[in-house]
Amino acid sequence: MAHNNGLARTPQMGWNNWNSLGCDVSQDLLLDTSKVLLESGLRDVGYNYVVLDDCWQGERGADGYINYNKEKFPKGMKYISDELHDMGFKYGMYSSAGEMTCARFEGSLDHEVKDAESYASWGVDYLKYDNCFHMGRFGTPKITFDRYNAMSQAINATGRSMLYSLCNWGEDYVHTFGMSIANSWRISGDIYDHFNRPDDLCSCTDPRDPHCVAPGTHCSIMNIINKVAPYVDRGSPGGWNDLDMLEVGQGGMTDNEYVAHFSMWAALKSPLLIGADLRELTPRTLTILNNPAVIAVSQDPMGRSVARIRQDFNVKKDRYGQGEIQIWTGPLYPNDQLVVFLNAADEEMTITTDLNEIFVHEGPEGSAPHSKHEWDIYDLWADRMDERQAEKILNGDTQVFQKGWFNSTETSYKDALGRRDERLMGVKVAHVGPAQPELSVIVPRHSVKMFRMQDLSGAGPRYLLSKQEL
Amino acid sequence: MAHNNGLARTPQMGWNNWNSLGCDVSQDLLLDTSKVLLESGLRDVGYNYVVLDDCWQGERGADGYINYNKEKFPKGMKYISDELHDMGFKYGMYSSAGEMTCARFEGSLDHEVKDAESYASWGVDYLKYDNCFHMGRFGTPKITFDRYNAMSQAINATGRSMLYSLCNWGEDYVHTFGMSIANSWRISGDIYDHFNRPDDLCSCTDPRDPHCVAPGTHCSIMNIINKVAPYVDRGSPGGWNDLDMLEVGQGGMTDNEYVAHFSMWAALKSPLLIGADLRELTPRTLTILNNPAVIAVSQDPMGRSVARIRQDFNVKKDRYGQGEIQIWTGPLYPNDQLVVFLNAADEEMTITTDLNEIFVHEGPEGSAPHSKHEWDIYDLWADRMDERQAEKILNGDTQVFQKGWFNSTETSYKDALGRRDERLMGVKVAHVGPAQPELSVIVPRHSVKMFRMQDLSGAGPRYLLSKQEL
Amino acid sequence: MAHNNGLARTPQMGWNNWNSLGCDVSQDLLLDTSKVLLESGLRDVGYNYVVLDDCWQGERGADGYINYNKEKFPKGMKYISDELHDMGFKYGMYSSAGEMTCARFEGSLDHEVKDAESYASWGVDYLKYDNCFHMGRFGTPKITFDRYNAMSQAINATGRSMLYSLCNWGEDYVHTFGMSIANSWRISGDIYDHFNRPDDLCSCTDPRDPHCVAPGTHCSIMNIINKVAPYVDRGSPGGWNDLDMLEVGQGGMTDNEYVAHFSMWAALKSPLLIGADLRELTPRTLTILNNPAVIAVSQDPMGRSVARIRQDFNVKKDRYGQGEIQIWTGPLYPNDQLVVFLNAADEEMTITTDLNEIFVHEGPEGSAPHSKHEWDIYDLWADRMDERQAEKILNGDTQVFQKGWFNSTETSYKDALGRRDERLMGVKVAHVGPAQPELSVIVPRHSVKMFRMQDLSGAGPRYLLSKQEL
Amino acid sequence: MAHNNGLARTPQMGWNNWNSLGCDVSQDLLLDTSKVLLESGLRDVGYNYVVLDDCWQGERGADGYINYNKEKFPKGMKYISDELHDMGFKYGMYSSAGEMTCARFEGSLDHEVKDAESYASWGVDYLKYDNCFHMGRFGTPKITFDRYNAMSQAINATGRSMLYSLCNWGEDYVHTFGMSIANSWRISGDIYDHFNRPDDLCSCTDPRDPHCVAPGTHCSIMNIINKVAPYVDRGSPGGWNDLDMLEVGQGGMTDNEYVAHFSMWAALKSPLLIGADLRELTPRTLTILNNPAVIAVSQDPMGRSVARIRQDFNVKKDRYGQGEIQIWTGPLYPNDQLVVFLNAADEEMTITTDLNEIFVHEGPEGSAPHSKHEWDIYDLWADRMDERQAEKILNGDTQVFQKGWFNSTETSYKDALGRRDERLMGVKVAHVGPAQPELSVIVPRHSVKMFRMQDLSGAGPRYLLSKQEL
Repeated sequence: MAHNNGLARTPQMGWNNWNSLGCDVSQDLLLDTSKVLLESGLRDVGYNYVVLDDCWQGERGADGYINYNKEKFPKGMKYISDELHDMGFKYGMYSSAGEMTCARFEGSLDHEVKDAESYASWGVDYLKYDNCFHMGRFGTPKITFDRYNAMSQAINATGRSMLYSLCNWGEDYVHTFGMSIANSWRISGDIYDHFNRPDDLCSCTDPRDPHCVAPGTHCSIMNIINKVAPYVDRGSPGGWNDLDMLEVGQGGMTDNEYVAHFSMWAALKSPLLIGADLRELTPRTLTILNNPAVIAVSQDPMGRSVARIRQDFNVKKDRYGQGEIQIWTGPLYPNDQLVVFLNAADEEMTITTDLNEIFVHEGPEGSAPHSKHEWDIYDLWADRMDERQAEKILNGDTQVFQKGWFNSTETSYKDALGRRDERLMGVKVAHVGPAQPELSVIVPRHSVKMFRMQDLSGAGPRYLLSKQEL
Repeated sequence: MAHNNGLARTPQMGWNNWNSLGCDVSQDLLLDTSKVLLESGLRDVGYNYVVLDDCWQGERGADGYINYNKEKFPKGMKYISDELHDMGFKYGMYSSAGEMTCARFEGSLDHEVKDAESYASWGVDYLKYDNCFHMGRFGTPKITFDRYNAMSQAINATGRSMLYSLCNWGEDYVHTFGMSIANSWRISGDIYDHFNRPDDLCSCTDPRDPHCVAPGTHCSIMNIINKVAPYVDRGSPGGWNDLDMLEVGQGGMTDNEYVAHFSMWAALKSPLLIGADLRELTPRTLTILNNPAVIAVSQDPMGRSVARIRQDFNVKKDRYGQGEIQIWTGPLYPNDQLVVFLNAADEEMTITTDLNEIFVHEGPEGSAPHSKHEWDIYDLWADRMDERQAEKILNGDTQVFQKGWFNSTETSYKDALGRRDERLMGVKVAHVGPAQPELSVIVPRHSVKMFRMQDLSGAGPRYLLSKQEL
Repeated sequence: MAHNNGLARTPQMGWNNWNSLGCDVSQDLLLDTSKVLLESGLRDVGYNYVVLDDCWQGERGADGYINYNKEKFPKGMKYISDELHDMGFKYGMYSSAGEMTCARFEGSLDHEVKDAESYASWGVDYLKYDNCFHMGRFGTPKITFDRYNAMSQAINATGRSMLYSLCNWGEDYVHTFGMSIANSWRISGDIYDHFNRPDDLCSCTDPRDPHCVAPGTHCSIMNIINKVAPYVDRGSPGGWNDLDMLEVGQGGMTDNEYVAHFSMWAALKSPLLIGADLRELTPRTLTILNNPAVIAVSQDPMGRSVARIRQDFNVKKDRYGQGEIQIWTGPLYPNDQLVVFLNAADEEMTITTDLNEIFVHEGPEGSAPHSKHEWDIYDLWADRMDERQAEKILNGDTQVFQKGWFNSTETSYKDALGRRDERLMGVKVAHVGPAQPELSVIVPRHSVKMFRMQDLSGAGPRYLLSKQEL
Repeated sequence: MAHNNGLARTPQMGWNNWNSLGCDVSQDLLLDTSKVLLESGLRDVGYNYVVLDDCWQGERGADGYINYNKEKFPKGMKYISDELHDMGFKYGMYSSAGEMTCARFEGSLDHEVKDAESYASWGVDYLKYDNCFHMGRFGTPKITFDRYNAMSQAINATGRSMLYSLCNWGEDYVHTFGMSIANSWRISGDIYDHFNRPDDLCSCTDPRDPHCVAPGTHCSIMNIINKVAPYVDRGSPGGWNDLDMLEVGQGGMTDNEYVAHFSMWAALKSPLLIGADLRELTPRTLTILNNPAVIAVSQDPMGRSVARIRQDFNVKKDRYGQGEIQIWTGPLYPNDQLVVFLNAADEEMTITTDLNEIFVHEGPEGSAPHSKHEWDIYDLWADRMDERQAEKILNGDTQVFQKGWFNSTETSYKDALGRRDERLMGVKVAHVGPAQPELSVIVPRHSVKMFRMQDLSGAGPRYLLSKQEL
């Protein structure tokens, strides 16, 4: 049976400690972070999973069961999950399908059943399952499938519902089978906090090459975006291409770059796991992470990723020889269209498209039905929260939350989108139609413009489920 | 044993709903379509398989047998096959060698025996067997062979003769073993209705690369043609390279492009499954699909594909950076030669070849025996049916069928070719020979010129079976 | 244990019908051909295997044993082997490690033991074992090894000594394990009778790419030479890289091209199987095939292939975009050096090297010990037989054989080389040494110059067995 | 369990006969060489493994146990190990995971248990385990893992501690699992004594391509450096990327090239096995091999390889078309930073970097914490021993050793580094800091400049163990 545990009907959202804190984990970290998530309103825009990454382990007991590190977690894992549940969060943990985890703690390979039992007994709701020290058990899809399916089966056997986040760095064509056993699957080496700098430690650069000597640990935002392009259609409700945890707020990119990063992750239907240390959350970072109009793209009930319709390398290159612009588009619930202009050139660009290009997948010039409709264009970043507002929130002034700030705990994105809730729609900035089909946009260097197109033709929802694009 | 079930001695022809209708299937659709095929004369030029694609399924019963969807098919599958058989058609169905079909209905993986029994009991004559949700069982030829062979064996065990159409998108070198278990095998990702636009969702572009991150769903006509070039010789009577179902008449290409598409599919010995919604068949589309002189190339009893003898990229490129011209040639029954000039440049081209190039596989300049013969050149599209004629047919005026229109139900292509039936020969347009070996042709942008060369030397049939080219 | 059946201590030589005659085989063909080999002196320069290729088979009996075709071979296979043995030849046959042979006769897959027994009972001395219809049993070295080892074991079990010629077109890194089970292994798709024309049906063009969608059937001389370059060191006494059967005399190349083809096959230590129809042998072809000075390179007792030390694409290209020059070198018994200048440019070239480059593998400029020796240079084609002489031989005038023509049946190449038999040495044309280290040669278009360098320093044999170069 | 036999906490150092002497091995060779190692002080700077390569074997006995060659080793292996142990060395031997070794002696495949028992009984401390004649058992990570794990398990079963040096030429992604079963793993074909000349016999040139038709035997220094770049982070205490044995002193490179070779092997944390014939050790070679400041980089207790932060091909090319410059950097114990400038251009280059680039992995321009510190720059080759001094040593004058020459047998590198022993620090040559962040260096053609940066900020050790970088 396909994986239909009812979870991840939209891409999961939450927080994970790895990107900012690595092995420096503790009970306090989790509880403190959860408090920030709650009080900053981030939980209520959707970030409801709190995920503990590597280094929580103690020794494996003589009985074969894994222990947690009692110094870092003096009250134990069940205590943490109880606390998190009380705050309205779900609790995630981590292991590796290897003899050791990446940080060389006890791995779960050949211990899947007992480890899943432990997680269930601790009230765990989510498992990130890594790929280090796999003992040579990779290299064909079947051997990787079997290794990861062992844990999938073990989780199912516990009877406890857990979101299963497969992390094998995109090896062995995992996008072709991830859906059958997991709720998400990583498609690249580890992200790092740079926009587009190539690094030898992320050696897989041709997105069409499934074999690569080392997926790596220093993959830039653009590297990952380019990797997923050939199979964006593999994500769908219940299972998602995972572009790795967010670097937003870590310090290595400009505000524009972080906006681009966050927008693309939402548009590509990647899980959205905040990677920053939230105890040091800045107002500016908050205003990226909490934009409900962009999150609504991520949490769109259709669950359709954008697809790329243009990639143009004929632009100014930077010191690393990098430079390109891209246009991505795809359907939104109920009958809108998303268009994202991604400028990765080394200068501001004016990018122009038209309705023929936006709907090119429906047919070439002049033949696409939707190219004949009238569309209003809404900028999804125009309503970005004012930084002073965000600063107030971080200072404990929650007044904003009483003033109609979007709260997905109370109202689902689906419902709000269905009635075109203004808080999710962005700001109208243009109109296109058969008479004036062109849409021309100035996009700053290393940034995106992201638009929701609203169909004025009165047509109903248009996308049937189609082959391999469910 | 090799697959010698006696079927597909020439490439199968028929209709399949997927390209135009996707999941929107029903009893009425099949019966209405069959009526069009019959009354338009398409059945009699060879389109005799009516194939139902995905989405017909209901649940799998507790007994392990699959049910059909009773709303879509109120009288059941046996009723449909009886109706089709009565009209002189054969009935095809669909499943996937996975846990689910591509549209997420019940798949046949590990249910092969019971599903084949159901198909046999329903009077099914043809099975298209897809590749979605394969549970990681691909990545080496053996594992794919075993997965598809399971259904081949299951079909054989039923005792009912069924044409077995393997659809694994060309993965795992299927062209090297497809012949041993199936009557045809797809060699690429899904076709889409564009002539040559590259799309990220058809990421495999180098035809020499057997590994590809995702065969994809948006493969253009030119993409597929270029993929099959290295192993055109793998198709032969009983088993064929499948270039996917026809897009002719779907609206995304010009008339010239559809003619090129149809001509190449015939010359490359691909199955010819009409993909358009025949209830909306236009006269112009009909005049492509019903050209007996071109279909005779497809149904040639020698079963030899053309091979490419020239590919020249040094031509005008279009907005996608695409542009090339190609020449293809190969033998025809009984002792003719086919030559196809394919202009995929962005402008009209005059293309010139000569007898030395046409017969280059027999030896270099001056040494090929057939380059010393005299040949008449016949244009296979010169006799294309007049659109007004086609319109009459679609309006129910079947007078044309009484006036000597070619009917393969009555006379086989082999017999008619053997006696050089004029309706299959095209129109004589030129002569070449040792004294005037050049053949120079003006080919419009995105189009083909397709010629049958008739040998005037009095030589008998010339091609022995040769290695790997049976 | 490694394959040490005592056979193929130097690359096998002989004749095989496929290249010229394909399926057109018979008892008379084999006997007539053997007669030509004998009377033309070809047997005595070394061509002592007569190998029957595909299409000799009848049905497989109910007892599981294969029958021969009684019409083509009325007196049976044992009769042929007896006749051949009486004439001093060894007898070779053919099958495929598949369900069918390439020409679709009964294959030996899963019938290895009984088929080997048949061959042994028929007095067979040599088996060419092909790769068609392998039922998906390829794609990793182990599965291919097992499939071919099954026949290796079956042959061994018969107790009869047979040279085992593995023919899997270079798939699955056969050069890394061929030596363990076979006496030679093909390293490419099928050769065809062109010097350097690229053809879509030989799609594997990058010699460094081990995976290729189809090894193909139209591989040019230059294509094959370039493929073997990275692992020339894998051939050694007892097991050889097989570059496929010779096209010399087939008509598709110029005399210069055939000389280049033959020279490179000898220098690269490929088996030398004549592929032409010997009943139509011309004097000119005979003078290529019977050059003892070149054959002595092939049959050199050290068994070391040349390695490439220069490949330069910066030369004039032909109509196919092809053009390059290459220099190859390697040791000869007892302490000589072979240098081959291969001109595949589209014009005559003057190619210059020096002692530093010839011995670059011993160290860079100035450091190679042998670069400090004095060397006489001998042209190995200078003594090519006069065509009128060859014509006399073919007319039955065997006087030449009484006049000291080299006869390897009487004197082994090893012995003759050891005493520097003049007939194997070529003609002295130059001298190089530290004072005048340059060697500059005019090489016609599509041709080679091939020199034996004789060391005047008085040094003894210099090459120890070294790792992976045995 | 991961391989944690307690060995190779820093990369192993020693001597192996293959590069200089190949099969020419004997008892005398080992004992004579050990004497040189001891008396030249090389043992005391760290070269404490004496490793015997291929060709020591006799026949395998009827009891399944391997014998040694009694002519080459008249007193047997135990005698040698006793002698070596007495001199303070550890004893290494060699076999192959194949039916034969590379030099065609008895291999250990399927004889692992008995062979490991023999080694243990002979007092062996180290096993180099090669890849020749593997019987097709490679091609997926699992099959290679299993083949090499068989010996790992067999060694463990003996109870004797042996450093396990896996040598499969980098095939099957060994860097992803080598750590689990071995103390080091080769990552390329065999090294040869050239700095950067491409050779057809080292065909794998794209470091990102894990599949390669033949790893080869003629891999240059630059070829190997470029191969390891994508996964330098896979080496860590207990298991190391092995770049193959040193060519220093063999004669094929200039002094600058050998310095570059040695420096990079140390910085990349490769094992350091001297490959030269030490009986002919020259003073100049000794002064490369015995530089304690460079060896201290190799033996740094953090065990972190440098990573490449710049590769620039836009420089002057040599006759082989080769030319590039590279910058590498990484942390040193306790809180220093290593920077290596590698000039492989065909001319002297001035190379400039700055603190932003050196710490780019911490964040882009301006954001890296360490880019704001003050650093002193120490040249690690400035204290290279004077040649006359070295000559004295080789002449038996050991006075230098009494004058405070660094002796790691007495004082570990870790302890000495901890107290900033001057002999390991190099010579201060510059200072950089936020005010003057640039470091500009003149690097001769084919050479390196190698600097230890000392942090003046007073910060403590900075590197936590991080994912995949342990």
